[in-house]
Amino acid sequence: MSDRREITGFSNPTVKYLRSLREKKHRKAAGQFLAEGLRLLTDARECGHVPEVLVMASGRDPHPLLSALEADVLAAGGEVIETSPDILSKITGKSNPQAVAGVFAEFDSSLDVIKRETANIWLVAQALRDPGNLGTMLRTGDAVGAGGLILIDDCADPFSVEAARASMGAIFTQAVARASWEEFLPWLRSGSGQLVAASLRDAVPYRGAPYESPCFILVGNESQGLPEEYETACDLRVTMPMKGRADSLNAAVAGAVLAYEVLAGLDS
Amino acid sequence: MSDRREITGFSNPTVKYLRSLREKKHRKAAGQFLAEGLRLLTDARECGHVPEVLVMASGRDPHPLLSALEADVLAAGGEVIETSPDILSKITGKSNPQAVAGVFAEFDSSLDVIKRETANIWLVAQALRDPGNLGTMLRTGDAVGAGGLILIDDCADPFSVEAARASMGAIFTQAVARASWEEFLPWLRSGSGQLVAASLRDAVPYRGAPYESPCFILVGNESQGLPEEYETACDLRVTMPMKGRADSLNAAVAGAVLAYEVLAGLDS
Repeated sequence: MSDRREITGFSNPTVKYLRSLREKKHRKAAGQFLAEGLRLLTDARECGHVPEVLVMASGRDPHPLLSALEADVLAAGGEVIETSPDILSKITGKSNPQAVAGVFAEFDSSLDVIKRETANIWLVAQALRDPGNLGTMLRTGDAVGAGGLILIDDCADPFSVEAARASMGAIFTQAVARASWEEFLPWLRSGSGQLVAASLRDAVPYRGAPYESPCFILVGNESQGLPEEYETACDLRVTMPMKGRADSLNAAVAGAVLAYEVLAGLDS
Repeated sequence: MSDRREITGFSNPTVKYLRSLREKKHRKAAGQFLAEGLRLLTDARECGHVPEVLVMASGRDPHPLLSALEADVLAAGGEVIETSPDILSKITGKSNPQAVAGVFAEFDSSLDVIKRETANIWLVAQALRDPGNLGTMLRTGDAVGAGGLILIDDCADPFSVEAARASMGAIFTQAVARASWEEFLPWLRSGSGQLVAASLRDAVPYRGAPYESPCFILVGNESQGLPEEYETACDLRVTMPMKGRADSLNAAVAGAVLAYEVLAGLDS
C-alpha cells in the first residue's frame, strides 16, 4: 500500500530505524541501506532502483526530479516521509544534509552477480578498509566501463552512506560481490579471466603489458598491500613507476591508473 | 634547551595546546602542525624535518627508529613528552592512535617554494576541499616525481592531521604552495610551464597528448570541477574516456591518471 506521512519528532521509531541504517549490523539485519542526495537518488532511479522509503526535508525547493522520484516511490507502493531538516540531518549524520534520502533494498552481493563475459574489466579489492576508497573504486569502475567490484576478505561495507556517496551513483550501476579469497579463486579459475596485480615481485612494466579480457584488476589493503600468496596467484604482475620515496600509491589511485592502462591496452 | 617530561593529566595546558593543533585557526596562529605515526615521523626525519615536540605513549614497544628520533629531537633542542595512550588519543583525535606524534613548524607555502625548473611535473588543485584527496595528491606527486602541489583558491589545509596522514610522508618531500588564481596565473606566465587540465571543452584525448615539461596538471573542485575561465586559460585540455553514466572521476584519481600519462609522455 502506498503511504505518505509527516514526522516531526526526533524520538519517532521510524527516525530511529532510519538512523540505525548508518550501522553495518543494522543494514545487514534489515537488508536495506541508505543513500542521500537528489543526484544519487536520480541516478538510482534511472538505473531502475526505486527507494522503498523516500525521506524529504520540509521547506526544500521544489524540483521536477524530486517530484518524479516521489511519484515513482508511491507508484511502487513505497512510503514518502516528510520531516524537518534537523531530523534529516540526524538520520544521515551530516551537518548539512541534502534535502532528500532514500532507503533501498540491498542488492545480491554473491559472486553470482559477476557475469564475466559482459565486461572487459572487473575491479577486485582485498581487505579495503576505507569506505571512501571503496566508493571511489566503484566510480572509477563506472568510468572505465568495468562490470563491477569484487570485495575479497574483510572490506568496508559497500552499502554504507559514505561508500554510496563516494561512488557518485556507481553503487547502482556496478555489480558488487563479496567473497573470501578461498571462494573467489576457484570461481575465477572456473572460467576465463586474467588476474592482474600491481606488484614489485617478478613484475613487468604496467605500461603496454599484455592485458587480456576479461581482466580482473586486484588491489590490496591500504596499509598491508596484497598478501604474497595472492600476488603469486596472479596471471600478471605489473609495476608502476615510483620516482619518489614512497613505494606505493593510495589503493583507489593504483586501481584507477591500472584500470585506465588496461582500458587503453584492450581498446588498441 | 633540551627538555624531557611526563604528562599524566588530560587538562594539562600542553595537552590542550597540542590538541588545538587539530584546528586550522590554531595551526595558523601557532605556525605549527601535528603529524602522527613512527613511519611518518621517520620519513620526516630522513627528509631533514625534526619535530619541535615529540609526544610518545608510555608502554609502547621500544624501536630503534623511535630512539633515533628522540635523540635527534633532544639534540636539536626540542622537547620530548611521555604521556598515556589515552591522552595521545585525545591529542590526535584517533581512537587507536599510533604510539608517537610530532609537532612541526609549518613550511613556507608561498609560490616562492615552487622551483619550476627542478621537476617535470607539478600538481595544481583548485578549491580541493577534502583533506584525504589533498594528501593523496601529495602521495601521487611523490610517486610520479613531481616537485610539489600548488593549492589554488580555498583548499583544505595541507597541514591537517588527515592530509599529512593521507600523504604517507609526502607532505615532507613535496613543496606545497597556496595562492589565489589571480596570483598563480601571472606567476606561471612569468616563466616556462604548460598548464594542462582534464576537460570536456575543446579537448584532445589524454593518451599521447603533447605534454611539455614543466607540466602543471590542474585538477578542479570535487563537486564543481574547474571554473570555465580556468579551463580556457590552460595551454592544453585533455579528455579521459568515460564509458559509464558518470562524467567525472574523483579529483585525486583524475590527477593521478593524468600525472602517470604525463610521466610516460615526457619519459618517452
